Amino acid sequence: MERAIDNQIEDLKKMILLMGGHVEKSLAQATAALLSRDLAMFDSVHAIEQLINEDHIKVDNACMNILAKQGPVAKDLRLIISVLKINNDLERMGDQAVNISYTGKDYLGRAPIQAQLNDIQKMSEIAGRMVKGSLDSFVRGDVDQARKILLMDDEIDGLKNKVFKEATVHIKAQPQDVEAGLDLILIARNLERLGDHATNIAEDVIFAVTGKDIRHGGKFG
Amino acid sequence: MERAIDNQIEDLKKMILLMGGHVEKSLAQATAALLSRDLAMFDSVHAIEQLINEDHIKVDNACMNILAKQGPVAKDLRLIISVLKINNDLERMGDQAVNISYTGKDYLGRAPIQAQLNDIQKMSEIAGRMVKGSLDSFVRGDVDQARKILLMDDEIDGLKNKVFKEATVHIKAQPQDVEAGLDLILIARNLERLGDHATNIAEDVIFAVTGKDIRHGGKFG
Repeated sequence: MERAIDNQIEDLKKMILLMGGHVEKSLAQATAALLSRDLAMFDSVHAIEQLINEDHIKVDNACMNILAKQGPVAKDLRLIISVLKINNDLERMGDQAVNISYTGKDYLGRAPIQAQLNDIQKMSEIAGRMVKGSLDSFVRGDVDQARKILLMDDEIDGLKNKVFKEATVHIKAQPQDVEAGLDLILIARNLERLGDHATNIAEDVIFAVTGKDIRHGGKFG
Repeated sequence: MERAIDNQIEDLKKMILLMGGHVEKSLAQATAALLSRDLAMFDSVHAIEQLINEDHIKVDNACMNILAKQGPVAKDLRLIISVLKINNDLERMGDQAVNISYTGKDYLGRAPIQAQLNDIQKMSEIAGRMVKGSLDSFVRGDVDQARKILLMDDEIDGLKNKVFKEATVHIKAQPQDVEAGLDLILIARNLERLGDHATNIAEDVIFAVTGKDIRHGGKFG
């Protein structure tokens, strides 16, 4: 028998995918603006942030509504709780893209240093794949795919460490570039955080599907 | 008539206060270790993180249990949803304290630069007051107090900008200090994030009490 909650959960999944699309786009635009030195493109990131903020409130309200009207239990309840958490992570990813666009604007106003941009591009691509993959694993309830996201986070962390190290060496040799170097370090940090949020989502998917809490090493679940 | 859910909500509040106490302690220890140059004290931050992680899982489970068994609606439902969010913010505050302890350990291994430590101490004190104040406003359902927390966040942001600026000037003049300067910048950033999480909590309190969503400028609530 078809239950009303099944349709509502399908609608929730669609809302989350739409929101995830906005997050992917804002990340891609922020990085493209940085790499193509296109100041105006940063403004589109702020326009997308407005959409993400609207999505954020809508998803929260939809979850509250299902909880109040359907009183879900077991797997349904875990799914709604996971959506509440995924919603928060997506919203904070949008904030990180905005942070990148602010710092990117500063960076474009300075004498360019290029050495770290290649790794930043790679980090952004991996982060984008993590957003897409984590939400895909959520919609399909695919635990194996969610586990792969956790591994991708190590790649991002490695690249962040590389950017930190190389930018520090650069600043020491050419201290007039300290602001530009610091900008790239902060952008690498933002991208690392984006990866962390995608990791949170993957962990939420594993919890929603299996009921197993793998956070904090799975020690307390 | 006394309802079962009232006792469960009281228990939840106690759990959140206990967890908040752990967060305050880990922040205070991380900062004290940095200022007193006490490497061993950083280890206590990691010990407290274990407690925070345990608290995190316990609170989530308690909320799930109330949602499944009591099917709360209206104000009760808003309160449980708020606790789920506050729980996440507190856990991430614990992560920030751990980040401070990692960077602080690096910092203590370098030739010290002292200029920014005074502002970092101030930031830590304000962040600590924000954690305590936001949770106090939550337990008492005090919207006025929650609004005051939002203002304190501006103080932290101002101090972070000051540390960023002064450390950058210092690095430019004395590039051999780039690593130490960068450490202090990252620690200031961690403290700023701690303030952001306390701000999130204050916004959740306002939502739980009034039903008004003031996030994102209150435009979509």
